[in-house]
Amino acid sequence: MAKASGQFVIGVDLGGTKILTALADMNGRVVAEAKVPTEAGKGQQHVLEQIVRSVEQVRRAAGLKSEQVLALALGAPGPLDTRQGIIHFAPNLAWHDMPIRQVLEQRLSLPVLLDNDANLAALGEHVYGAGRDEANMVYITVSTGIGGGLILDGRLYHGIADGAGEFGHMTVLPDGPLCGCGNRGCLEALGSGTAIARDARDLAACGRGEQILAAAGGNFASITAITVATAAAAGDATAEAIIARAARYLGIGIANISNLLNPSLVVLGGGVMDIGELVWQNLRPEVQARTLEAARTSTRISAAELSGRAGVMGAIALALQNKPI
Amino acid sequence: MAKASGQFVIGVDLGGTKILTALADMNGRVVAEAKVPTEAGKGQQHVLEQIVRSVEQVRRAAGLKSEQVLALALGAPGPLDTRQGIIHFAPNLAWHDMPIRQVLEQRLSLPVLLDNDANLAALGEHVYGAGRDEANMVYITVSTGIGGGLILDGRLYHGIADGAGEFGHMTVLPDGPLCGCGNRGCLEALGSGTAIARDARDLAACGRGEQILAAAGGNFASITAITVATAAAAGDATAEAIIARAARYLGIGIANISNLLNPSLVVLGGGVMDIGELVWQNLRPEVQARTLEAARTSTRISAAELSGRAGVMGAIALALQNKPI
Repeated sequence: MAKASGQFVIGVDLGGTKILTALADMNGRVVAEAKVPTEAGKGQQHVLEQIVRSVEQVRRAAGLKSEQVLALALGAPGPLDTRQGIIHFAPNLAWHDMPIRQVLEQRLSLPVLLDNDANLAALGEHVYGAGRDEANMVYITVSTGIGGGLILDGRLYHGIADGAGEFGHMTVLPDGPLCGCGNRGCLEALGSGTAIARDARDLAACGRGEQILAAAGGNFASITAITVATAAAAGDATAEAIIARAARYLGIGIANISNLLNPSLVVLGGGVMDIGELVWQNLRPEVQARTLEAARTSTRISAAELSGRAGVMGAIALALQNKPI
Repeated sequence: MAKASGQFVIGVDLGGTKILTALADMNGRVVAEAKVPTEAGKGQQHVLEQIVRSVEQVRRAAGLKSEQVLALALGAPGPLDTRQGIIHFAPNLAWHDMPIRQVLEQRLSLPVLLDNDANLAALGEHVYGAGRDEANMVYITVSTGIGGGLILDGRLYHGIADGAGEFGHMTVLPDGPLCGCGNRGCLEALGSGTAIARDARDLAACGRGEQILAAAGGNFASITAITVATAAAAGDATAEAIIARAARYLGIGIANISNLLNPSLVVLGGGVMDIGELVWQNLRPEVQARTLEAARTSTRISAAELSGRAGVMGAIALALQNKPI
């Protein structure tokens, strides 16, 4: 690649299995990208080196001098402290109170910004995806867990201690199934991919859901939301019912958010949304029924556009918003 | 009263039974107040005249020339359109699409601002009450209904179509009791004074709750949240259990709001909160159990300070924020 002129920023999406890094110009146009494995099992220092390696890859690919990069923003699993730049706890990485901003600023000689991965996915969809020009937007990602981020008055909203946007832990059924957080009836325990897989395994253990079990190669432990979706797509009524139930709870959660915040748009992303029409047709009526008129007639719902790239694009947006002048 | 010099604003809290009006100086210090009956049964024109009468009362009491009053803000039951100054629907007043801003501006020759009564109570608590100096504050009023308002980044947050802050219609039990809005399991159907009274009447109809019935003079139809609270204060276990259940649902609703918005403060007002310790001791553990660590350790909960004056003080704050320069 020819040497690029001008100024750039770097976005990094630090996941449990891979690190996605992109270099973009001042207009947010990506000019280089790298994907490296996180290899969390090799320890904390190794993961830091993998981040540094990915940054050097994109700098080298674009043929940049180091002073051409103005800032780097990193999205990481929370809970974390955006102001101090500290990751309090990242279970998939076995990190505790890691001062990652300080560590990376020293290694890379760059201003570094830190935010929650779901927040940055929200910002990515806001700036480059489904939520362009929406002043107030809620982004929800429905995957193995349920998370998201809030854009209020055009900016990411964090709450007083970076605790905002925990949609997955909204109670929607007080005595419902146990959630990974220790409580019962959280949206994540009812509407996530993990909940879909749990319900399917429980039914299979009762001798039902033959098609689901077949889609999982006959192995209980291999049943996931994907195998349930596969069985549903093949017309299995049990699989359809499991997914429909999860989608109705998602609709309840979205209605609650709409009645609380009345955003102009709710953007839905994540693997469970990729199941498609079966989810949407069970989710929408629940939202319609459970929102008051103001929210029902003014809050739109749409699918995310950036898929797995939302986080890294949000990191680029954050770096551009906060680069030194 | 001696004639006041300087400049002033007027706040009006339009309720179903009374209109509370206050005149304040540029520091928000109230110098005159009026309370007149709404008399909604006498028709729309009469209610407008009552508002005008109350405004003239406070102007006269302070001995003001009309040009000394810079602006008036009115809090009214919603749904309404703050930008257009139209009350879409006020069931207690039998109003539909009333362009009240325009009507009052013509009658009073003053700039008039309109907002939802619960929003203005939130603003009142933010500027003059329990939420002073809190950048992000949620106000919830628990009375016959459940409503509230959001202060985000120091300002009232309305959502895209004035639909934000409808805490009462958050679903917390999908197949729960019917709500006045037509859905099931809204927080208002489980945690409000109306829910407390309904549960008590239902139990009394089954031959239980003798003390509650006695507190209501032996008349089923006279059972209210107040009679239940009276019986609970006298040690009646049935009454205590009814209130405790409602309070636990309030705790669930507050936990959900905290996990979504992580405000620095949640302020609780309204008649049900006046029941006191029995409500707080059942509400707090539920909030603690159902919030994630960030919200649990950073979002405080406190009692409202302004009681029935929150709305009119919020109207004064709104008028001061928006007066002509």
